[in-house]
Amino acid sequence: MNFNQRLNTAIEHHHSLLCIGLDPDVTRLPSSMRHDADAVYTFCHEIIAATHDVAVAYKPNIAFFEAMGVAGIETLMRLMHHTRQNIWILDAKRGDIGNTASAYAHAAFVHFQADAITLNPYMGGDTLEPFLTHADRGAFLLCRTSNPGSRDIQELRLADGRPLYLAVAELAAQQWNTNQNVGLVVGATQPDALKAVRTICPDLPFLLPGIGAQGGDLVEALNAGLDAHRSGLLINASRSILYASSDENYARAARAEAIRTRDAINDVRYAR
Amino acid sequence: MNFNQRLNTAIEHHHSLLCIGLDPDVTRLPSSMRHDADAVYTFCHEIIAATHDVAVAYKPNIAFFEAMGVAGIETLMRLMHHTRQNIWILDAKRGDIGNTASAYAHAAFVHFQADAITLNPYMGGDTLEPFLTHADRGAFLLCRTSNPGSRDIQELRLADGRPLYLAVAELAAQQWNTNQNVGLVVGATQPDALKAVRTICPDLPFLLPGIGAQGGDLVEALNAGLDAHRSGLLINASRSILYASSDENYARAARAEAIRTRDAINDVRYAR
Repeated sequence: MNFNQRLNTAIEHHHSLLCIGLDPDVTRLPSSMRHDADAVYTFCHEIIAATHDVAVAYKPNIAFFEAMGVAGIETLMRLMHHTRQNIWILDAKRGDIGNTASAYAHAAFVHFQADAITLNPYMGGDTLEPFLTHADRGAFLLCRTSNPGSRDIQELRLADGRPLYLAVAELAAQQWNTNQNVGLVVGATQPDALKAVRTICPDLPFLLPGIGAQGGDLVEALNAGLDAHRSGLLINASRSILYASSDENYARAARAEAIRTRDAINDVRYAR
Repeated sequence: MNFNQRLNTAIEHHHSLLCIGLDPDVTRLPSSMRHDADAVYTFCHEIIAATHDVAVAYKPNIAFFEAMGVAGIETLMRLMHHTRQNIWILDAKRGDIGNTASAYAHAAFVHFQADAITLNPYMGGDTLEPFLTHADRGAFLLCRTSNPGSRDIQELRLADGRPLYLAVAELAAQQWNTNQNVGLVVGATQPDALKAVRTICPDLPFLLPGIGAQGGDLVEALNAGLDAHRSGLLINASRSILYASSDENYARAARAEAIRTRDAINDVRYAR
């Protein structure tokens, strides 16, 4: 089964568009845990145990684990190998020439056993291909990100009047999705952009960062980004769920916040 | 001293524009070494010992070390901590939002002790800033790369008629280089592109992949890319030097090929 089918099946099964971003920050763990060498593993594991039936996907950002050195990488591998009921998206934003991309794909899909990865498309199609040949694994390409600097390059006007990110969307839909395993990263903070990308890519899944701590409006983002089946989105929330409580009850608080977010999303999906 | 001054000083001191790319491929090591668990360390260490007075810089691609798992990352750290007479450019092509970029910068500049890093600018200025605040460390931004797919996005025509990569060059020179520590990655395979980027960025150092195995013409690339001081370039060669011989004499062969390449470069630099 190709990745985009796998993702749709998982969304139906979990009845959820919620993706939980795992960006563990040691300074924000409950104070009782901070002297535990394995604290990040325990913290993430408890969060996952409390939310795996609520979220459809997890998105660990590899940078937060790399910053902990070798032990951090091992922690991430253990977490990913342990929990297989959900879709795991390795947020790595890789992009490099052929033989290097093959090495990254091997690391992501074999060592980490990721179901999907985020990629930076700036270097073009031949740098994506070593990932896209794995039809059962997905690649979410950066299209229009949610940070302020996304204007610098992504919004440059092309000769045909469109902003650059729409050309990226078109390449994704028309050239790179031959294995039905391409998705796009589109920030939730710009509903107009999201709507324009959805028009070009009616069938691609979008990963939406920017809800919650980054200030994106959930209702507007959903109405702009949902596909014809009122699906096709992964709504990512990280800090609002991970740090819902700074007490020892963090996992229970995370579950409550995850349920609240999932239900708020489903309320919009089924509102009409 | 800011990075671009440091780099110029090193170029003068070594009398060389040669950068050696360290992309170790276990299957291409001399057969006598392949059963040595530490073979990659030994191989790279011997290459460096034989060339550190010929090359001004080394550019390890982190993907090749990550693909070896945790041991590969440790190998790269040992190599970088051991050899401090040269400029080390960590080829990682990172690009992510603020707090993530800070984590990557910490890994590159503190854990690996890199002098510079390669970055992907697609996400914009705020994703580069956590690196650029380190004035003594450099950032080489992907501008026009040497792979075939670079056309897909980098050559898209903007409303003003220019290809996108020239807008990236202009942002680099006019907005992002406030600490004199920005450089650009410009493929050696396209001398016209190189010349256009040099016109926009007379003072920035360029890192040029694509000589040797990728087929770029050295003389054309140098004449297109050298700055007003007949400098300002790092010419990267990887496979032609690392695998100059597949025998046990690989280090001596690498030194001979490095000297040949350095001298061929200097012949063009001083030809007029």
